[in-house]
Amino acid sequence: MLQTAISHYQQRVNHSLESQLAALPVTDPKLLEAMRYASLLGGKRVRPFLVYATGTMLGATEQSLDPIAAAVECIHAYSLIHDDLPAMDNDDLRRGQPTVHIAFDDATAILAGDALQTMAFEILANCPLPVEVEHNRIAMIRVLAKASGYLGMCGGQAIDLASTGKRIEQQELTRLHQLKTGALIRASVELGALATAQCAVEHYQSLTEYAEKIGLAFQVQDDVLDITGNTEQLGKPQGSDLAADKSTYPSLLGLDGARDVAQNLYQDALTAIAKLPYNSEQLEGFARYIIERDQ
Amino acid sequence: MLQTAISHYQQRVNHSLESQLAALPVTDPKLLEAMRYASLLGGKRVRPFLVYATGTMLGATEQSLDPIAAAVECIHAYSLIHDDLPAMDNDDLRRGQPTVHIAFDDATAILAGDALQTMAFEILANCPLPVEVEHNRIAMIRVLAKASGYLGMCGGQAIDLASTGKRIEQQELTRLHQLKTGALIRASVELGALATAQCAVEHYQSLTEYAEKIGLAFQVQDDVLDITGNTEQLGKPQGSDLAADKSTYPSLLGLDGARDVAQNLYQDALTAIAKLPYNSEQLEGFARYIIERDQ
Repeated sequence: MLQTAISHYQQRVNHSLESQLAALPVTDPKLLEAMRYASLLGGKRVRPFLVYATGTMLGATEQSLDPIAAAVECIHAYSLIHDDLPAMDNDDLRRGQPTVHIAFDDATAILAGDALQTMAFEILANCPLPVEVEHNRIAMIRVLAKASGYLGMCGGQAIDLASTGKRIEQQELTRLHQLKTGALIRASVELGALATAQCAVEHYQSLTEYAEKIGLAFQVQDDVLDITGNTEQLGKPQGSDLAADKSTYPSLLGLDGARDVAQNLYQDALTAIAKLPYNSEQLEGFARYIIERDQ
Repeated sequence: MLQTAISHYQQRVNHSLESQLAALPVTDPKLLEAMRYASLLGGKRVRPFLVYATGTMLGATEQSLDPIAAAVECIHAYSLIHDDLPAMDNDDLRRGQPTVHIAFDDATAILAGDALQTMAFEILANCPLPVEVEHNRIAMIRVLAKASGYLGMCGGQAIDLASTGKRIEQQELTRLHQLKTGALIRASVELGALATAQCAVEHYQSLTEYAEKIGLAFQVQDDVLDITGNTEQLGKPQGSDLAADKSTYPSLLGLDGARDVAQNLYQDALTAIAKLPYNSEQLEGFARYIIERDQ
């Protein structure tokens, strides 16, 4: 049943992204194609799922969440394009396909990432919102900007690059991932909540705590899969963290230690939302999926 | 007197950028330093000037315009960092100093550009605005996003890359520059106007027409200076357009032909704002400066 919801939301966000991109004139065919390629070539759509699951749980319509889910995914897609560049992680393969700079070229990859970042903010600034939610529009832009920039994803990637080849301690590794992947995952849940008029502050706090736990669990499981997964399932070479000489949870804690951390984060995530007076089934199921997934 | 205003606004926007950057924690010293380096290392501050001159002409305080001017300059600075990368224009020198990827490294340059783009939107979403201007905040974000993305600056850079080594006609060259530099120059004037509560629609239209004319004149003069200027004044190698095999106004129209185009654009800009019931002296003087500058 969770898998049905995952697929359903994947289809919705893909359709939403397609509509946003189809609305652009074909003045730069190559740039537009690279933006399409980067944003529509599969992916788990973890962040859009969280926008939809949180928003609908609190009473938003899926339709009102479509552009918001697309905006978050634009930021994620842009970050993947730039992280994969030769000057950064130098990855040729993503989701089993050539990365953007391989399929196109480095310059187009840089520009496609840049334009997708802008598009995220443009979508949030322009998308239709229910009248009673309009007053949250600026808050949405603030949340997405903070999660994406120096204080979030971008800062995390800088720390990641600076840490490569060094052994860092668990606390520093956690901080890195809280910024690099955690911030945008948290923002996805916040955006889902902000897309409704009636999220009480204490519920908002419970949801952000849930998001922080699963955000970290997601990364721990990613590190585990880098060791236990296979290249075909992962869509990228198994063992690439090791090859890149990156500190990971298994490298610091062993495989079982890392799995324990993920399990504890999962339990903490459930506890965080246990008292919400809403049907949080999808969020609970998704937390389990995060730590049990094999890709 | 215009030079006094130019220096005054340069100092204001530098101070504003410094404050914005000083507010960030030093979690990533290298990334933060690259963001500072890119945004504070001189520059004519054409876009901030237009924000200040337009805004104050219409009654805004300089203080209320400080963050807005900084936001526009963040977008401009990010675009210069990415355009200078080896994968793009591969420039080692900017404003007489090593470009960001030379002074730091390619990865840091990509990330600093990314983070400066985000910072622009974060500033506009968070900056204090006079109560009577608050309702324009979303419009400001829309204007900046549209001018920066696929439909503006980013799209223009893509067309520029695609056109390098080809001869393109004047109409296409104009379109390229309307997007690559014109869109953000126009946005600067629009942001100055949106930072006030009382800009009538017909005045807004006159101002955007002025901005479009001087935006193009700016680029024509840039092309002229690439031939007639010297490396020291320009802060970049004289003749770099020729070396990069780019179509320019002088290459299509000859040096005199290009100067005529700039002169006509200047006159059109003056005509556009001639009937404004405000003291447009600074905007008029700046239009002249645009076509007479030697750097």
